Amino acid sequence: MIKIGILGYGNLGKGIEESIKEQNDMELVGIFTRRDPAAVGTQTTNKVYGIDDLINFKNKIDVLILCGGSHTDIPEQGPKYISDFNTVDAYDTHANIPQYFNKIKALATQNQKTAIISTGWDPGLFSMMRTLFATILPAGATYSFWGPGVSQGHSEAVRSINGVKKAVQYTMPNENHINAIKNGVNPQLSTRDKHTRVCYVVPETNANLEEVTKLIVTMPNYFADYDTTVNFISEAEFDEKHSNLPHGGIVITTSSINPNQKQVMDFALSLDSNPQFTANVMLAYARANYKLQTLKNYGAFTVLDIPISYLSPDEAEVLITNI
Amino acid sequence: MIKIGILGYGNLGKGIEESIKEQNDMELVGIFTRRDPAAVGTQTTNKVYGIDDLINFKNKIDVLILCGGSHTDIPEQGPKYISDFNTVDAYDTHANIPQYFNKIKALATQNQKTAIISTGWDPGLFSMMRTLFATILPAGATYSFWGPGVSQGHSEAVRSINGVKKAVQYTMPNENHINAIKNGVNPQLSTRDKHTRVCYVVPETNANLEEVTKLIVTMPNYFADYDTTVNFISEAEFDEKHSNLPHGGIVITTSSINPNQKQVMDFALSLDSNPQFTANVMLAYARANYKLQTLKNYGAFTVLDIPISYLSPDEAEVLITNI
Repeated sequence: MIKIGILGYGNLGKGIEESIKEQNDMELVGIFTRRDPAAVGTQTTNKVYGIDDLINFKNKIDVLILCGGSHTDIPEQGPKYISDFNTVDAYDTHANIPQYFNKIKALATQNQKTAIISTGWDPGLFSMMRTLFATILPAGATYSFWGPGVSQGHSEAVRSINGVKKAVQYTMPNENHINAIKNGVNPQLSTRDKHTRVCYVVPETNANLEEVTKLIVTMPNYFADYDTTVNFISEAEFDEKHSNLPHGGIVITTSSINPNQKQVMDFALSLDSNPQFTANVMLAYARANYKLQTLKNYGAFTVLDIPISYLSPDEAEVLITNI
Repeated sequence: MIKIGILGYGNLGKGIEESIKEQNDMELVGIFTRRDPAAVGTQTTNKVYGIDDLINFKNKIDVLILCGGSHTDIPEQGPKYISDFNTVDAYDTHANIPQYFNKIKALATQNQKTAIISTGWDPGLFSMMRTLFATILPAGATYSFWGPGVSQGHSEAVRSINGVKKAVQYTMPNENHINAIKNGVNPQLSTRDKHTRVCYVVPETNANLEEVTKLIVTMPNYFADYDTTVNFISEAEFDEKHSNLPHGGIVITTSSINPNQKQVMDFALSLDSNPQFTANVMLAYARANYKLQTLKNYGAFTVLDIPISYLSPDEAEVLITNI
């Protein structure tokens, strides 16, 4: 059994806890939280510990799953815990990944530990597909679209506005462009072309709806570059229809060597629960991490470095029989 | 530059020749054929040699691409040439792959050579996706559908019937089932449910069309288990509309832990030229073969054993920057 530790108990940590139940070769050793362990109600276990206890589990955890946020948690926790643990994270600040990778790689190598960074689906499976597709179709153009799905960062941005009680933001891909690309068109697309943004907002009593709308649609970085729709709804409707965290997206590569020969590859995800899916991906890479450790293959790795067979619980003989 | 040899100059061999032009890190050393080299008109090169010359290129070819058929060519050529060459093939007789793999692995290891077997897209990329998807969604059901596309085996079977001058067979996936699966339904599907078969036949003058139709639709192994439509058309229409070799398909996995939480992953190909695409996949694995050789990693490998980064011509620094 591969012994798993969970660091951080938000949506992703809960997803890992849930997903371990589906894995026959893994067991949960503990959930480590910055909160008061006694105050954290978990679903399936009473193995909740304070983060300061983690070091006492140094030789009792095969793979530590870092479930914190990419903004502040992972950049601090990744380097901190790699000296004592083999880790898997879903660090997703694309621009900083090379720097983060090099830092973790140096520390992991020095401490004979294995880290697999930036798993999940983007970065993660989508990165794998973009690299694969661009390699197979070198003359092609590769596009990524995200959604329909909840962007937590954008939802938080809306919630930060005065007069907003609750809010959720859905990123919507432009299906017309996706269909055109699938049909062999390779358009030049601006940020505004590719996605629209739709917000569902529960306003505070007496909020100025016009003002709230204006603040949302003009917000730099988050909304100003997109066509955004704002819908005001009741709290009851919000709680009923907008409590889940669906997401998804598509990577498409189309190559048209000539008009009569187009080749199209695509990979798509449609997820009712984004954190649950990300958790499943991370546990597959936890299994790969365990195999790498066993092979004394230390250092830092991304999804591009891991053969698919390392992710699977099946033996080589089973895999090749079902190939 | 990775030096490539092509063994066999049918549709696939021509595809490899064409695809090498798109690869900046590869060069074509020679095309080796059982036919009279002088009689083989190639597209881009005059480097055509008889198959008996191949052994003289033992140290001049980094990767030999086996482009023969899986029925008789590859089972003979794979074991024969692995003692002197590093090889990539697209051996696709699923049931015999484990046996073929073990045979090639033993010979390759013994001779310090590297073989990547059963590349292409099924087996190949589809195998990779089936394994990946089933690993990420262990509670899910995985389906493969093929087409719309030309099945060369089935087309040949139709052409073998008396009274048939020319024929092509298209395998058609049942789109209703694909859509249902994408929407979270996990149906039990029979062979007849999943695909239909459509034949376009140019009959010989005086052929008994009713008799030809009956012989096709009742043919065991090929058509008896399917709903098959036979269309008789003129030779002019056939030559105009049915000279290409399109194909494609989809691998879908749907997991529904509960009715409100379905997770769907899919990978789809839509190919105007099946041999050209297969050739592109094989060359990506030729690059991986070259990397494995360089690392003195000898033996036999499948697509499940190869990290995506090995397929790409890009350096690690570029890959992680674009991750």
